[in-house]
Amino acid sequence: MTSPRRAPAAARRSEATRRAILDAALDLAAEVGYARLSIEAIAARAGAGKQTIYRWWPSKGAVLFDALLALSDGADGPAELPDTGDLEADLKAVLRATVEEFADPRVSEPMRALSVEVLLDERLAAEYRERLDGPVRAMKLRRLQAAREAGQLAPDADLDIVLDMIWGPVRDRWLYREGPLTADFADAVVETALDGLRPRP
Amino acid sequence: MTSPRRAPAAARRSEATRRAILDAALDLAAEVGYARLSIEAIAARAGAGKQTIYRWWPSKGAVLFDALLALSDGADGPAELPDTGDLEADLKAVLRATVEEFADPRVSEPMRALSVEVLLDERLAAEYRERLDGPVRAMKLRRLQAAREAGQLAPDADLDIVLDMIWGPVRDRWLYREGPLTADFADAVVETALDGLRPRP
Repeated sequence: MTSPRRAPAAARRSEATRRAILDAALDLAAEVGYARLSIEAIAARAGAGKQTIYRWWPSKGAVLFDALLALSDGADGPAELPDTGDLEADLKAVLRATVEEFADPRVSEPMRALSVEVLLDERLAAEYRERLDGPVRAMKLRRLQAAREAGQLAPDADLDIVLDMIWGPVRDRWLYREGPLTADFADAVVETALDGLRPRP
Repeated sequence: MTSPRRAPAAARRSEATRRAILDAALDLAAEVGYARLSIEAIAARAGAGKQTIYRWWPSKGAVLFDALLALSDGADGPAELPDTGDLEADLKAVLRATVEEFADPRVSEPMRALSVEVLLDERLAAEYRERLDGPVRAMKLRRLQAAREAGQLAPDADLDIVLDMIWGPVRDRWLYREGPLTADFADAVVETALDGLRPRP
């Protein structure tokens, strides 16, 4: 006979295994890179069976996708950008944090791997937009919307373009390894985007 | 005895085969996508031997890389952006052309494939920067430099950031399939970048 306690205990064990697999995937992606990441290695590192992983995920890309989602779920507090009333300072703080995140291979390598999968696979791209990128983008748009209402952005600004102009250069420099990714670069991007490229009178 | 004419004729045949292979690679990448592109299919389409391809290129990524280089070599005229003296109009024209290029799967699919390879492979990224992206970037920087000298850009503008701010949003929207890529979008990006995000007095 099954004890009424068995199901919760099994669920806890199962959740612990899931967490161990996601952690192992992030660690290994950071250590060996995505191209050489294998389900076998994830299973060995997590102390789980290969079959367990294949039962829950169809591919290593899917494991990493969930691992990244779990990372963002684990973040404290409500998912809002800081709003001190000073748009320039807030954007610089956020963009500096992004620069630091990209410097951490445990985040950066899985993000790179996911980007690659998204580029190749339109279905995964749609899922990525819905589950990972979409909520983050919505959060950024809310902050920009507040800034526009406070008169700190042009009233006719297209906020999607504003968003690309602020976050795009940092993401591109990371993605294409186009140059050093520093706090100074983050600051310069924010200032350049806000002030525009024309000479100031 | 080898006729003195044989070497040039062989070289012409060899060049014709090379061109056929590069063309076939571009066509097939556009038709079936990078993930399903194979050396076998390229050989069959080009009427060449598989071994010929493997003798000249180590991978399908390398074939596409050369195919894209050949495309840009084939462009007419000197590699300079238009300079009518009107920076805004020139940038809009260039960015609209980029939007059109991305709409053509024969360019877009190999570019996507190459982006993926570049993301995963630091050595290829370096080669990409040197042979393909670098010269294009230098050309854009020359146009921006001329604009700055003509007083159409802020004298202290960081031209690398200016470049990212103008070309980045279009590339990102294409790469991540984030939204419709239209001439209107190109225009709005140029206007927003030039004017900046703050309210205009």
